[in-house]
Amino acid sequence: MAQNIVTAAMLAIGDELLSGKTKDKNIAHIAELFTVIGIDLEEVRIVPDTENAIVKAVNELRNEYDYVFTSGGIGPTHDDITADAISMAFNLPCEYDEEALALLDKTYADRDLEFTPARKRMARMPKGAKHIKNRVSIAPGFIVENVYVMAGVPAIFQAMLDELLPNLKTGNKMHSQAILCSFGEGDIAIPLGEIQKEFSAVSIGSYPKFDGKKFSTELVLRARSIEELSNAAAKVQSLVDTINAKRA
Amino acid sequence: MAQNIVTAAMLAIGDELLSGKTKDKNIAHIAELFTVIGIDLEEVRIVPDTENAIVKAVNELRNEYDYVFTSGGIGPTHDDITADAISMAFNLPCEYDEEALALLDKTYADRDLEFTPARKRMARMPKGAKHIKNRVSIAPGFIVENVYVMAGVPAIFQAMLDELLPNLKTGNKMHSQAILCSFGEGDIAIPLGEIQKEFSAVSIGSYPKFDGKKFSTELVLRARSIEELSNAAAKVQSLVDTINAKRA
Repeated sequence: MAQNIVTAAMLAIGDELLSGKTKDKNIAHIAELFTVIGIDLEEVRIVPDTENAIVKAVNELRNEYDYVFTSGGIGPTHDDITADAISMAFNLPCEYDEEALALLDKTYADRDLEFTPARKRMARMPKGAKHIKNRVSIAPGFIVENVYVMAGVPAIFQAMLDELLPNLKTGNKMHSQAILCSFGEGDIAIPLGEIQKEFSAVSIGSYPKFDGKKFSTELVLRARSIEELSNAAAKVQSLVDTINAKRA
Repeated sequence: MAQNIVTAAMLAIGDELLSGKTKDKNIAHIAELFTVIGIDLEEVRIVPDTENAIVKAVNELRNEYDYVFTSGGIGPTHDDITADAISMAFNLPCEYDEEALALLDKTYADRDLEFTPARKRMARMPKGAKHIKNRVSIAPGFIVENVYVMAGVPAIFQAMLDELLPNLKTGNKMHSQAILCSFGEGDIAIPLGEIQKEFSAVSIGSYPKFDGKKFSTELVLRARSIEELSNAAAKVQSLVDTINAKRA
């Protein structure tokens, strides 16, 4: 099967994620979603709200992966510096976007709210950036080349991602099959490694669980070919059955 | 006040974190704990179980921060390659550690379990590495220079971290104070930015919340000096009171 692989990295931006004040919810969301649609999430980074950290991470990741998705730092306050940092990473001026200004102006007028200089900050983006619409807060995210800049608030992050989905290129999906074992990894590791060697196009993951008293194991097989996945899974299941029979 | 700052990065290793199969719990744990004890977590990365990705991340992070803490990939199965990758990063041979072998041998004997070649894999580590004890699974984590290699299973990760705590050097703690606002960021952003300019040793974070209907804001002030924190917080609280009075 010809492989068509599309790769992505996620960059979560925010002091609050590194201080433990906020537990990130966007990484797990994008990880699950991308697995379903056929984009390989290959790296995640979390960095603070500092220009150097953001610029360095964005420039490293955008050169390495097909897509980079960022979360956080595009609001109206002084600590929202993502638009400036992305502009700097691409060596573009960071400007008030006319279309975003008009959109926000209308929205605040409709809501009878003042369009303050702070709110206007949400229209700043690298010159020429494309918008990512957002049905929740109206203030758009933006796209520069392969970098997609989105809000950190999960409801808005998810709304922006939904907006993008129809136009993201995707690759062959990674299919998966899980097999649960009531014993620890040590009982299966060696023959499992043999099966892994036999099926190089299948990735076999072994995940120990500990319930406070005893260990069990979840085996997860992943492959782009359903046929290869199914052949490898049959072998693993047969191995698990043999071990269970011995232990019974 | 003389600043004593200790920095750290966390490297979470595992395909399952990037596929969305498993939601990481160790990042939030280390972030909260380090804030309490006075270590600044400055970066987090999540990478897959591939040697290149681990080696590259470890070498970048260990040169940049005082400490690097890793999670995942030190079990007995074929996909547990962290010990090999860390050895490669430090250009050290990856060997069976005599002390770890003896410890595991005794433990499995006590439990009447066979000390299989797979289980012996858990004694492999870079030559000369120090152990990180672990009361849950016995198999130790290990330390090479400033890199601390721990298990991915949260109960074991936490047990290993508890073991390390008494001997980690720590810096001046970052104290914090939160102020809740029943209005959105746009109403406070500009004067809040002025207060931020006035208190350069205090970091003022503004975190929008969206409950599905309306926005509110949590302001979090952080500083190493309690006095400066308290002075800045008083100014912010007074600003919030003024805005509330206007809106009433």
